[in-house]
Amino acid sequence: MMDSAEFRKRGKEMVDYMADYLEEIEKRQVYPGVNPGYLRPMIPASAPEDPETFEDVMKDVERVIMPGTASPACTELEIVMLDWLAKMIHLPKEFLAGGDGDGGGVIQGTASEACLMVMLAARTKVIQQLHLKHPELSRGEIMDKLVGYFSDQAHSSVEKAGLIAGVKMRTIPSDEKFAARGPALRKALEEDKAAGLVPFFFCATLGTTPSCAFDNLLELGPICKEENIWLHIDAAYAGSAFVCPEFRHFMKGVEFANSYNFNPHKWLLVNFDCSTLWVKERTDLTDAFKLNPVYLQHNHQECGLITDYRHWQIPQGRRFRSLKLWFVFRLYGVKGLQEFIRKHVRLAHEFEDLVRQDERFEISADVTLGLVCFRLKGSNELNKTLLENINQTKKIHIVPCKLRDKFVLRFVICARTTESHHVQFAWKHIKELAVELLNGGYQTQIRN
Amino acid sequence: MMDSAEFRKRGKEMVDYMADYLEEIEKRQVYPGVNPGYLRPMIPASAPEDPETFEDVMKDVERVIMPGTASPACTELEIVMLDWLAKMIHLPKEFLAGGDGDGGGVIQGTASEACLMVMLAARTKVIQQLHLKHPELSRGEIMDKLVGYFSDQAHSSVEKAGLIAGVKMRTIPSDEKFAARGPALRKALEEDKAAGLVPFFFCATLGTTPSCAFDNLLELGPICKEENIWLHIDAAYAGSAFVCPEFRHFMKGVEFANSYNFNPHKWLLVNFDCSTLWVKERTDLTDAFKLNPVYLQHNHQECGLITDYRHWQIPQGRRFRSLKLWFVFRLYGVKGLQEFIRKHVRLAHEFEDLVRQDERFEISADVTLGLVCFRLKGSNELNKTLLENINQTKKIHIVPCKLRDKFVLRFVICARTTESHHVQFAWKHIKELAVELLNGGYQTQIRN
Repeated sequence: MMDSAEFRKRGKEMVDYMADYLEEIEKRQVYPGVNPGYLRPMIPASAPEDPETFEDVMKDVERVIMPGTASPACTELEIVMLDWLAKMIHLPKEFLAGGDGDGGGVIQGTASEACLMVMLAARTKVIQQLHLKHPELSRGEIMDKLVGYFSDQAHSSVEKAGLIAGVKMRTIPSDEKFAARGPALRKALEEDKAAGLVPFFFCATLGTTPSCAFDNLLELGPICKEENIWLHIDAAYAGSAFVCPEFRHFMKGVEFANSYNFNPHKWLLVNFDCSTLWVKERTDLTDAFKLNPVYLQHNHQECGLITDYRHWQIPQGRRFRSLKLWFVFRLYGVKGLQEFIRKHVRLAHEFEDLVRQDERFEISADVTLGLVCFRLKGSNELNKTLLENINQTKKIHIVPCKLRDKFVLRFVICARTTESHHVQFAWKHIKELAVELLNGGYQTQIRN
Repeated sequence: MMDSAEFRKRGKEMVDYMADYLEEIEKRQVYPGVNPGYLRPMIPASAPEDPETFEDVMKDVERVIMPGTASPACTELEIVMLDWLAKMIHLPKEFLAGGDGDGGGVIQGTASEACLMVMLAARTKVIQQLHLKHPELSRGEIMDKLVGYFSDQAHSSVEKAGLIAGVKMRTIPSDEKFAARGPALRKALEEDKAAGLVPFFFCATLGTTPSCAFDNLLELGPICKEENIWLHIDAAYAGSAFVCPEFRHFMKGVEFANSYNFNPHKWLLVNFDCSTLWVKERTDLTDAFKLNPVYLQHNHQECGLITDYRHWQIPQGRRFRSLKLWFVFRLYGVKGLQEFIRKHVRLAHEFEDLVRQDERFEISADVTLGLVCFRLKGSNELNKTLLENINQTKKIHIVPCKLRDKFVLRFVICARTTESHHVQFAWKHIKELAVELLNGGYQTQIRN
């Protein structure tokens, strides 16, 4: 909760901190003296409820991070921050690194990369299983049989991951609320199995891109479990909302998932990029990608205490992105983050109410979080023209979608600083352009 | 060439610039008014020879970047910066976006991702070709035939890319200078073709990780061309040196490549991550990854003027990494960057000379750039103990490698601020520990 004056002050302190560090660097040890696992006991087991001060965080940078600079601190803070975040959103404890299980989290760049990583892990796993069962089949013959699934509302990155993985992908038709449901998945599975294919992966979405719809995990999860299908959950946008208990009912059934992903960089006040991915079985990922050249071997790799994140991702190098999480969690506190999400949802409903009060407009999908799908009652052409007029006037910017055969406008609350008066301004502006359009017909469209 | 005082001054100005921007943001247009291609004519066609001032660059941020914030500026600066850099290292002009050809560059996170992207593009291309020739083969049957190649000195990320792409990978034995040569590749190709396989990809390395060896492109290139094999060049480390004409002889044969990659974040004063990849045929990449959902469609996508980098990479979102290149190129100038590289190479030779003057030591590979591979004459055990003693004393840090059956220490000049006295300090320290080890035997190893 940093205002502009505070940002100037703290930003300049950080500049001095960096310059001091570089000036004094030769006095520091060239290689950290800490042992694997050093960091976790030095900080709390979960995020603070209330905001802390910037001074508190900076003191801990010196106390906790600097002795382990850079690589062990970078890895170990990430492990613990992913546990903090998992606890904040009430992920089942199998996904935690610090629990009794074999799970853990990792920061990926984007949800696209997260989906690709788990699809590749699932592919390796099923190929190994099939190879045991059918040693006569070649790898390519096995690959020809594999098929992954996603709803017709899922993000295009799922299909792209399928292209890269070299496996068939099939869409599941969503229901009238744009959610994937059990019977539709079941039907596709039966057809594909009858055709000799092997279903191995399903990507469920919590908060779809077009309309923020939620796939029904309680129906889909048991089917995936029964059919030995890797269930990945893409909650890229909506996932941030689950810091608030009142939105967690959308996650029901998450316990069936093999992997879970969302983007704190989308809606949890963390700068791009920071996409958090958890798996229940770390070895599912590392088995798919583990290679160990001599120049990357180290004394601790077989001790079981440490995490080699290079086996959890495509790149080998890594940035210290967990610092962003640590700072945000502590400067806001869980309560501050909840307040931020709730305010955005309130503002979305404020916009929804304005739309509903105007009978020329209609709401096109349930408003659950920060997205309002709306349109003028009338043709797609009419709505396309309205969108074009809005975006050409350049006072607000709106990105559309297609819901079934309807062209729909998407009003999204997402900026940190959005207030009620912005919502009121936007609605007034949209209404004016709509009135102009409805009165003047298409002929008087604004043409720059 | 920014010293600590200048960094404090400019860093604080940047903090104010950001705060001012956010305070005044509501006065700005929400969506840029520029047209595709707006940026290129606003800046020079190549990097400056001499350094410019920070003020000059910041003036251009306001003049060139802000009117196109964020997405068009982000994309368009990247296109032009990759052209600047291609010119600086004398890449053939087919790799430029601003030339007559169909090439262009893109920033990837790491060389691992770059290699994966082009391997996937090559896979798509060869699958399409084989599918036309043999429509009776399934995709999996085609995949079973594909085989990619890399030298036994190549980085492990090439093998990892093969794992992800789901294709066979084969190593080519390197010669006594640790370089891949034509005859070795030819032999592998003939064997594999005789076995019914389809060679489709070769990753050549300029500056291998273990010893900075250079694969022989003049031998390998024509073979790849003749055999319809995608030639990718991984110059991750050494590529930065090619800003200096005297090192460009190592690139001879680059004209045979389909794609070329190096990491300015390794040795060209750009912060991690920034890995630059060029291709001769943009469509090779985009054909492999193009998907177009409604919410990502835009008015300019079919006009041929713009680049949708989301089809050039795995993630969809992107960071504005070309700003780092723009700042570094202008603040150093080409001459400043050349000076920086030359100084490091000089320092490496200074260390090499010190090693050669001590007959207890030997140099293990030609010293060409900033890496010196050396060892005590004697057993691998002896050298492992020396390395352990060096790294446990924590005054300097050394990463080893295996060259054939020899355990070798790698002394690398890589920090921006390294000077002759650091090299002298390091050598004195290494020699002291070596003397201690040689005099005392293994029994008196330092054990913390």
